[in-house]
Parts: sequence; C-alpha cells; structure tokens
Amino acid sequence: MRPQIVLFGDSITQQSFRSGGWGAALADIYSRKVDVVLRGYGGYNTRWALFMLNHIFPLGSVKPPAAVTIFFGANDAALLEGMGKRQHVPVEEYKDNLRKMVQHIKSGSPNTLVVLITPPPIDVEGRREYARSLYGDKASGTPDRTTEATGVYAKQCVTLADELGLPSVNLWSKMQETDGWQKKFLSDGLHLTPEGNAVVFSEVVKIFDKAGFSDLPYDFPAHSEIDEENPEKAFLQQCPAV
Amino acid sequence: MRPQIVLFGDSITQQSFRSGGWGAALADIYSRKVDVVLRGYGGYNTRWALFMLNHIFPLGSVKPPAAVTIFFGANDAALLEGMGKRQHVPVEEYKDNLRKMVQHIKSGSPNTLVVLITPPPIDVEGRREYARSLYGDKASGTPDRTTEATGVYAKQCVTLADELGLPSVNLWSKMQETDGWQKKFLSDGLHLTPEGNAVVFSEVVKIFDKAGFSDLPYDFPAHSEIDEENPEKAFLQQCPAV
Repeated sequence: MRPQIVLFGDSITQQSFRSGGWGAALADIYSRKVDVVLRGYGGYNTRWALFMLNHIFPLGSVKPPAAVTIFFGANDAALLEGMGKRQHVPVEEYKDNLRKMVQHIKSGSPNTLVVLITPPPIDVEGRREYARSLYGDKASGTPDRTTEATGVYAKQCVTLADELGLPSVNLWSKMQETDGWQKKFLSDGLHLTPEGNAVVFSEVVKIFDKAGFSDLPYDFPAHSEIDEENPEKAFLQQCPAV
Repeated sequence: MRPQIVLFGDSITQQSFRSGGWGAALADIYSRKVDVVLRGYGGYNTRWALFMLNHIFPLGSVKPPAAVTIFFGANDAALLEGMGKRQHVPVEEYKDNLRKMVQHIKSGSPNTLVVLITPPPIDVEGRREYARSLYGDKASGTPDRTTEATGVYAKQCVTLADELGLPSVNLWSKMQETDGWQKKFLSDGLHLTPEGNAVVFSEVVKIFDKAGFSDLPYDFPAHSEIDEENPEKAFLQQCPAV
C-alpha cells in the first residue's frame, strides 16, 4: 500500500523520533502518504552495519522502500587514540562500505531514492564535558572525535554520492555555516539538539519534496470530501476495491 | 521481522508524531524492537473509518500487527447543533462501530493486542477561542463539542473494552484528574499539547509494557556486544541467517 522511507544509520538516526527529532518530523509531514521506518543502530559503524544489510533490505522484496537515508560516519570517524577506537573504520573502507550499501539497495530496486547524509561536525569541548559528566576526573583528556577527522569522512560521503549520482546532505558543512553551531545543534558534542534535528529535517525534506513525496495523494479521502449522506461514494472513487 | 504497533484513529492519532507527540514517543522507546505504524485520519468518525478497515487490516495478512490502538470518538461526539454536525455519529452506533473494528482485527489475528482509547475531555472555552481565531465575529457561539457529550462516548468505549476483555485508556477521566487540564493538556480545546500527549503516552506504554513489549530483544546486537576483532560472531549468534 503506502510507500516507505527507511532511515538507516547510527544513533543519530536511532534517536530521530525523540521530541523534535528529524525522523518523527518526516513521519508527521508525510502522514497519510508515506510510512517512515526507523532503522537506527546506536554505536554502529558502516563495517558492522553491513551485516544487517540483507535483513533490512532483503533482495526480491515485493515492496522495496521508495527512499532510504544512509547516515553513518560519526562512529567510523572515531579516533584511534580515543575512547571510541573500537568503532573506528578507515575512511577508504567507510566509503567502500557506503558504496556496498547503495549497490545492495539499488540492485534490489533501482528506483529507490537513496540519500547519503554526512556525519555532523564535532564540538570537542562538548564531548569533553559529556565525558566528565560520565567519568568525572577519570575522563580521558584525549578527544574521541574531532571536526577535522570527521570532515574527511564527510568529504568522502559527498564524493561518493556525486560519483553515484545520488543526492546528499553535507551536514558537516551545513551546520558549520551557523554561528554557535557547537551548542546550538549538538547536545553532547555529537548528538543533535532539536535545532540540530531541524537542520537534518529541512535538508532531507528538500530532497524528498523534489522527488515528489509531498505531492503524493492522501491514502484515503480527506474528511471534507466525504458526503455525510453517502459516505461510501468518496471511498469507492478513491479506492474502488474497498 | 519486527512486530508492529498500528495507531488507528482520528486527528489526535494523525498528529501524534508532532514534536512531543505520543506516537513518536512510542516509536522512540521501542526503537530497535517494534515498528510504530501511523494510521491517523483527521476529521474521521468511526462510521467513515469502517470503510478503511479491510485496507488497513487485511484479513489473511502474513504479518498482522502485534498491537493496535483504536482511538476514535472525538468526532463522533460532535454535537448535532454545532459546526461539526456532519461528523456526528450516535453513541450506540459509535460503540457498535468500535466493536466491528475489534472483531475485524481479532478475526484476522486473535493474538493482536487491541487497546481502546477514549476521546479526551473538551475545553469549550478553548474551542470558542479557536473558532474566533479562524472566523472572527462570524464564529458560531454554539459549542461544537462538550465534555459532557464526549463523556457519554468515553463511557461506552470503556464499557465495550470491559465487555470484550480488552485494555483501555479512559483519557476523558484521566485528564480531568489534573487541575487546569483545559489549557495544560489541550491546545485548541480538543487536540493535545505536548503535556497532553505525554498523558496518552504514559497510559498506553503501561499497557504495552505489561504485555511485554519493552522486554523484546533488540533486533541486532547492541554495539557493545560486538567484538571488533570478530564482528560477525555477534551477528551469527543473534541472527544465524545473516
């Protein structure tokens, strides 16, 4: 019945249905048109995400998604010398893993709109405060992520999208265009505030709307189109098989 | 794969993925466990909703929902002498329509947990202000809904749930337990503020948690369970068909 948009990513996707979240906002704006399916996996890098690919996007599905957002890199870009080193994936492999994801999804359904989203920039000071709030004086002084390191991944993400002719959101660049992005958009130096979620939503919805999602019809008649004396008429017109 | 919870109702369901919404909060709390599917239809009463029943809950589905919330009545209870008279459904028919919904869903899948939710109480003053904001001096002085009239529907909703042995949320009663519920929980005298959404969420999640939804396992390993030297191990253990 309804088209689906699958949100595939790490914690920034998993948390996208919290209050003010970009995933929930998509579900709201496309209510009665599209189902938004949450496939976010906190802590995951692209290497681990590949193990789920066949499950989440089974080949030969009778109803492949109309669109997929792929939003990884924040964990791949964790520094080898920091607390997140076990999540680190070299940037060449990151790019290659993203390519495998796209190829897998497109091989099952060439018409699926795949959107690549880069990781956001990092507020190192925010990460430090967050680590202190968890570990106190035992918190490592070494940052786990930096904007510079994450930027290398963001660049490869956008480059890949261009190579493959896919739309992309360069969140890393976009957020840094706003003064005070560090606290305005990031809650712990990495995850998104409601304002940060609004940036993702606004960029993603531009792409979806260009692809015609907002022009999709309601799945059943608007209540104002229902003749209260003859309600079945509106339903028979719009969905003859009722 | 994942179990589904379908939210079936009118605008109070349709708007449940707005910021602070009860639907989005369910999707968030059950992320990686359950898919929350939005089937809210603004302006609909139970009479019109019946036309959609076979489409939204097809009999013989290979994957019927694990749970369904049925949340109608706010429009059925619109007063015959008010602006919403075309939406009015007599209370006996409302109860009978709810029964038909439950019977349809249960006939396709007897194990689906069906939860009935009553309409909220009405803030007549809030409705009046809302009408004035839309129509100015032309706004009708006659209320379109009242707490008393809606209470008759709420009572039948809960009575039906008891008759059928289903869990229910008496939102009409629950909200009125809090002083200042009129403005605290209702944004235009009928639809929910974030605080009002939180009441629905808290009541519904109690029922779902009692049914074991929060005990469901993650759909893939937690990232902390993944051995970075041997990542496939965790996936093979949890989902051997990977």
